Amino acid sequence: MEDLQRNTVGEDHASNPTVFFLSDSTGITAETLGNTLLSQFPGQRLERKTIPFITTVEQAREVVATIDRMAGSGPRPIIFSTAVGHDIRAVLAQSRGLFFDLFGTHIGQLETALGASASGQPGQAHGLGDAVRYQSRMAAVEYAIEHDDGQSLRALERAELILIAPSRCGKTPTTMYLALQHGILAANFPLVEEDFDTMALPKPLLPFARKCFGLISQPVRLSQIRQERRPNSNYASLTQCTYELRNAEEMYRANNVPYVNSASMSVEEISATVLQRMQLHH
Amino acid sequence: MEDLQRNTVGEDHASNPTVFFLSDSTGITAETLGNTLLSQFPGQRLERKTIPFITTVEQAREVVATIDRMAGSGPRPIIFSTAVGHDIRAVLAQSRGLFFDLFGTHIGQLETALGASASGQPGQAHGLGDAVRYQSRMAAVEYAIEHDDGQSLRALERAELILIAPSRCGKTPTTMYLALQHGILAANFPLVEEDFDTMALPKPLLPFARKCFGLISQPVRLSQIRQERRPNSNYASLTQCTYELRNAEEMYRANNVPYVNSASMSVEEISATVLQRMQLHH
Repeated sequence: MEDLQRNTVGEDHASNPTVFFLSDSTGITAETLGNTLLSQFPGQRLERKTIPFITTVEQAREVVATIDRMAGSGPRPIIFSTAVGHDIRAVLAQSRGLFFDLFGTHIGQLETALGASASGQPGQAHGLGDAVRYQSRMAAVEYAIEHDDGQSLRALERAELILIAPSRCGKTPTTMYLALQHGILAANFPLVEEDFDTMALPKPLLPFARKCFGLISQPVRLSQIRQERRPNSNYASLTQCTYELRNAEEMYRANNVPYVNSASMSVEEISATVLQRMQLHH
Repeated sequence: MEDLQRNTVGEDHASNPTVFFLSDSTGITAETLGNTLLSQFPGQRLERKTIPFITTVEQAREVVATIDRMAGSGPRPIIFSTAVGHDIRAVLAQSRGLFFDLFGTHIGQLETALGASASGQPGQAHGLGDAVRYQSRMAAVEYAIEHDDGQSLRALERAELILIAPSRCGKTPTTMYLALQHGILAANFPLVEEDFDTMALPKPLLPFARKCFGLISQPVRLSQIRQERRPNSNYASLTQCTYELRNAEEMYRANNVPYVNSASMSVEEISATVLQRMQLHH
């Protein structure tokens, strides 16, 4: 709480409201839905402040006091709350900010639909939760690091997914995302020039062709990204990028490896596509 | 869409409703809020199906047909939707499922508060979005891999955060999470027995004491985790774990390094705590 008061939240609140993400747990859900809604207003430069772990009524009152001070001297703050505790929600709802109760809005209907009462326990979504599932995510992160960029071919048979692509098409961050968020055992394997002597998959991948998913990109985009790593190299040249991408795509087609052009996709979009196409959702 | 029909969604829907996460983008926000709400009903075993990238009215109609078939032969499906497009939302809302319109519920109030109209463009939240921010996240993932487990001491001055802890307290997945989700340049550094000869920070960290955050754990828990890696080793013994954890905590205190006991915390909870305590939110 002291952190909040020391901070310069809302310095420029003369023009734009400050956005608060409030939670009795991590605040991740409040940030996710709140930012999704705010992304619909790209012109607005909004200061954002996450206050997680509001677990007592006293803490809630301090947060409200801060918000109310801000409301007194500038535009009305916007609040996205996923607080679960009844007393804490009641206190937060009394603030002078515009209060979006992301938990309370829907929970009643859900109780009716499921014929059960909400547990009222905060921290169930991003806590340890299901221990088996949690451990599988942590094991997947280790696996992803160990099998990044073809580093280890050991235990490739354990992989649920092998992402293949020429260098700098997005393999590594996608693998990490799938491991961390979904617990997918994902390896990744770089395609290099020698791999294109024939259109067969690289030898270590042959037994696992059905686990492979390919990425390609746009030559100009790839060349830009490679320039950052090795300026003025053959590796970064447009000719080389074009050559590798064309051959990679041909290899995917020849071996029925599903693939996507990742040039204008985020790691989240690539991951969602891979999960859908490979039917990998856990 | 074909994938959906081939799939055995809702096989056991005699007893429990199937939950759908629908989106014209990745579906991440629908999953996040939906799962947060559902985590309040831990007794329910619900089958869950994400259908991302519903970008045409025809696709929306196919999804509705699938849901309606299910509604005809079992409990009413539950739908969490973050679809943005007006026409697509209108079609999805006509299904016989219980429809939670996570976008439409709040967007009107937000338009009023901000005095602006929603752009109506899907995919703004988990797409490439702000290119600078996106590139900084991807660069942070690379940095995290390069600086995992003290592997590289190069460019430690670029780190915004250095997580320090004895082996297996959760440094690596926390670093990856902070890099991938928040674009934090985070290194991590293992504390080993020799580091405890004095209570000073290890030499490479001395110039960066203010960037350090420590983790400890519970001896029994740590011993269990280490047993999985190296059964019956001194490394995994309760004596050794107790020794390392006690000394690590003493080192943190002696050097004013903030720290947290991660034994019963998820990587999301550790990350939210680190962000809050180190004032690192971007």
